[in-house]
Amino acid sequence: MILLFPGDFMGASRVRLEGRRFRHVTEIHRASLGDELNVGLSGGLMGRGVVVGLRDGVLEMDVDVFREPPVPLPVTLILALPRPKVLRRVLSSMTSMGVKKIVLINSWRVEKSFWQSPLLEEDKLNRQLVLGLEQARDTIMPEVLIRSLFKPFVEDEMPQLVKGTVPIVAHPHAAKECPRQVKGQVTLAVGPEGGFIEYEIEKFMECGFFAVNLGKRIFTVETALPSMLARLL
Amino acid sequence: MILLFPGDFMGASRVRLEGRRFRHVTEIHRASLGDELNVGLSGGLMGRGVVVGLRDGVLEMDVDVFREPPVPLPVTLILALPRPKVLRRVLSSMTSMGVKKIVLINSWRVEKSFWQSPLLEEDKLNRQLVLGLEQARDTIMPEVLIRSLFKPFVEDEMPQLVKGTVPIVAHPHAAKECPRQVKGQVTLAVGPEGGFIEYEIEKFMECGFFAVNLGKRIFTVETALPSMLARLL
Repeated sequence: MILLFPGDFMGASRVRLEGRRFRHVTEIHRASLGDELNVGLSGGLMGRGVVVGLRDGVLEMDVDVFREPPVPLPVTLILALPRPKVLRRVLSSMTSMGVKKIVLINSWRVEKSFWQSPLLEEDKLNRQLVLGLEQARDTIMPEVLIRSLFKPFVEDEMPQLVKGTVPIVAHPHAAKECPRQVKGQVTLAVGPEGGFIEYEIEKFMECGFFAVNLGKRIFTVETALPSMLARLL
Repeated sequence: MILLFPGDFMGASRVRLEGRRFRHVTEIHRASLGDELNVGLSGGLMGRGVVVGLRDGVLEMDVDVFREPPVPLPVTLILALPRPKVLRRVLSSMTSMGVKKIVLINSWRVEKSFWQSPLLEEDKLNRQLVLGLEQARDTIMPEVLIRSLFKPFVEDEMPQLVKGTVPIVAHPHAAKECPRQVKGQVTLAVGPEGGFIEYEIEKFMECGFFAVNLGKRIFTVETALPSMLARLL
């Protein structure tokens, strides 16, 4: 699916695309004049676009949108900032699964250098989110919050964030197994490689979190996240 | 965890490691003399290794193993060969989840060039499996079968392979939702980007497979696999 933004429109139903989306359509879809492509309006409906112009690096389509995007996943994800190359893939994959709120937080075992990553700049971040939406065929952009100080986030913002949700923190040493098919909204917190430290787990538990394990195996965050979401929801 | 092979042993309980594992222990674990590390014998028990030598690129440990590896996942994975960089990550992540049999197959939408990837050579393949075992703390190497012809595999080998299992094929257009917590052994087949074609789905169904969807969203194979396994098992 190709995600369309207000600035792409030249008329009520005519769009004009250049750059990455032009290349994607010509190189991956190998589209030609008259072809139909899946499109979606950012934040709105999805449907079809008919290619009416395709030259000099410019794609023009007449679009018709009529279908609702898939329902969001009822989960807020709190994630210790992973290393940049992992973050890139995780942002897209969590977006593709329908997560609409992601909070990137600090933790004792997060390497300080990760916070310098250019990937945290708004336009680079948004690019990964758009790729996730296009992959999944969804139009609703997730909100990503960046919180580089653990204590102020946990003490000042978390109590409000978890209100009305089932708050769960992944912890290899937890006695309880990760539950299945939890009803209602979930807040899921996942630590860095090596996990959250005990002090951090305590802070989560002060906010009402349940600590749960994922079995005896230790997963990378990229494997743990889709597994936990599929199991919880 | 560090996976140990028979060739690493200099005595009944003394091992000598060089190369990747030496660098991993010195650079990632930042181990020094006397430190304890998690170890496992390939195909056998797991336990602790005490660093007794660490210089000139050689690590020596005295090892003591006493713990069973985690139980395997009761699943055989049949996977349309993904592009090499995806295959690399998928092999490690599926190994980390405990899959012990992976069959890489051809499909109409698999690009022919993927079959030329050096990653399919035995030593490169094994390297990804070892990384998955070390990540998860497991010692049992998965078996990987490579089947570059779809029809002979499906007609000659598949009937035997699925015997006594619940065979499930992921298909975006299937009417049935992916089930949860299936009892017994599962054979899970997952297609390439764009999915299996109808002819291929029919061949799977002739072998008794159930076609199931994953909801309205379309996932990359890296996201779909952990999600499906977590849901099925």
